[in-house]
Amino acid sequence: MNTPDIGAFGRMLGFRITEWRDGYVRMEMDIGPEHLNRSGVLHGGIISTLLDTACGYAGTWCAKKGNVRWAITVNLTTNFTGQAKSGTITTIGRKRGGGRKIFFASAEVLDENGQILGFGDSVQRYRSGSEDPEGMPYKPPA
Amino acid sequence: MNTPDIGAFGRMLGFRITEWRDGYVRMEMDIGPEHLNRSGVLHGGIISTLLDTACGYAGTWCAKKGNVRWAITVNLTTNFTGQAKSGTITTIGRKRGGGRKIFFASAEVLDENGQILGFGDSVQRYRSGSEDPEGMPYKPPA
Amino acid sequence: MNTPDIGAFGRMLGFRITEWRDGYVRMEMDIGPEHLNRSGVLHGGIISTLLDTACGYAGTWCAKKGNVRWAITVNLTTNFTGQAKSGTITTIGRKRGGGRKIFFASAEVLDENGQILGFGDSVQRYRSGSEDPEGMPYKPPA
Amino acid sequence: MNTPDIGAFGRMLGFRITEWRDGYVRMEMDIGPEHLNRSGVLHGGIISTLLDTACGYAGTWCAKKGNVRWAITVNLTTNFTGQAKSGTITTIGRKRGGGRKIFFASAEVLDENGQILGFGDSVQRYRSGSEDPEGMPYKPPA
Repeated sequence: MNTPDIGAFGRMLGFRITEWRDGYVRMEMDIGPEHLNRSGVLHGGIISTLLDTACGYAGTWCAKKGNVRWAITVNLTTNFTGQAKSGTITTIGRKRGGGRKIFFASAEVLDENGQILGFGDSVQRYRSGSEDPEGMPYKPPA
Repeated sequence: MNTPDIGAFGRMLGFRITEWRDGYVRMEMDIGPEHLNRSGVLHGGIISTLLDTACGYAGTWCAKKGNVRWAITVNLTTNFTGQAKSGTITTIGRKRGGGRKIFFASAEVLDENGQILGFGDSVQRYRSGSEDPEGMPYKPPA
Repeated sequence: MNTPDIGAFGRMLGFRITEWRDGYVRMEMDIGPEHLNRSGVLHGGIISTLLDTACGYAGTWCAKKGNVRWAITVNLTTNFTGQAKSGTITTIGRKRGGGRKIFFASAEVLDENGQILGFGDSVQRYRSGSEDPEGMPYKPPA
Repeated sequence: MNTPDIGAFGRMLGFRITEWRDGYVRMEMDIGPEHLNRSGVLHGGIISTLLDTACGYAGTWCAKKGNVRWAITVNLTTNFTGQAKSGTITTIGRKRGGGRKIFFASAEVLDENGQILGFGDSVQRYRSGSEDPEGMPYKPPA
């Protein structure tokens, strides 16, 4: 697995990618006090962020070593089905369909016991140059 | 205006509420490097978080001094319409409808020039004890 | 299986329920010329309607013979992933979570070859008296 | 105003366009018994259809007489905020943003008294040849 760059906000959240292949990603994150909302449970915005991120990765894996694909989120829906205060949570993203320019993905966030905390769908758009499944050589954003 | 507690994750993001009344909220946030994604622009998860937060506040203002109302996000949709790298962004939330237990709200995030960066809708549920528009005495989460 | 009343609009669309059990429903519909949009393909509104309907059924099956449960759609998201002009389409709905008053479901519409035409999620609310999994005696709407 | 072709399913529903200009559309429909669900109120799928349709029209008006623009719905969210059994309902759609290929729109359905029955957002994609604001000569779908 090529471990991708997860970006500054990703590092602030502190999640890690534990599996990544064509059309599929699995990520983990340990809930800390900085992730809680004013009711003391995992902030919904973080659940949205994890779903968004997993949907993006689900459609941007590429086989060619050193190459990457970039996607931009067009739309994201989150359904909040449960709450958590601590523990390691898992996010799974799957590509559902799409064409050369746009793809669709679904993702879900599970707590340590496999209970569903949130799920949702996303429309994502490949950035110019990333339409090709072989991707493009990695270049840091300008 | 009673300035509400914005919670730990809210403080980490660093937004502030600049107007809050029945059915309406306006918030501001200064984009910093910690808010950027791996493409170097404001992370979509933050836009979702701001929309989520604004939708919640739009339905939980209460007139009675010292009292609060709590809402839980059931569902959130985000549409990503623009990008920003820096500057102060504004989020506006408005209540759209609902009953005693559930309410609907819409929100949008605007950049410094009033260009729309994202917008969306949310279904929110009043926490038990918060259905009354007069709210309940503030008590920190257990 | 208790075949439920599908209502006037359901009869106008002409779908049929082919499997229904706790947390799951499968429906079929034969595409006719009256289902097409101005581009000559299955109207997106019908895909939304089928997803909406399947999400509702996914949470309202009840074991007690003659009893029913009613749900009201709070929110529905549809992603349009494919197109069809004819043939028999299948809609599958699954309950994803929820509590006594509200539940979440996902559904997808597949064409004759199993290609996905659309998928989405829904927040549904049990009507008063339908919270109990045993349901309530059927009574036509007033 | 060029009255557009509303298609077979549009004619079955029976709505009419009462105002259409750049970025904006207003439609009306008289509720009949064929529009009701199994609870005897306007079917949610029709609200979704009207929102979908209005979002599409909001981005496809074109100034050039005889020309048209076509859009395909990528994603649609509907929030169901009210119920109606009869009367004339109004749907208003507004373009919210977008680029050459994709646009975003929001719409709402109001009952005779201006109460909101439903609202939502949509991602739409211009069909090939429709990206130009001047549109293309009308040609019936093959």
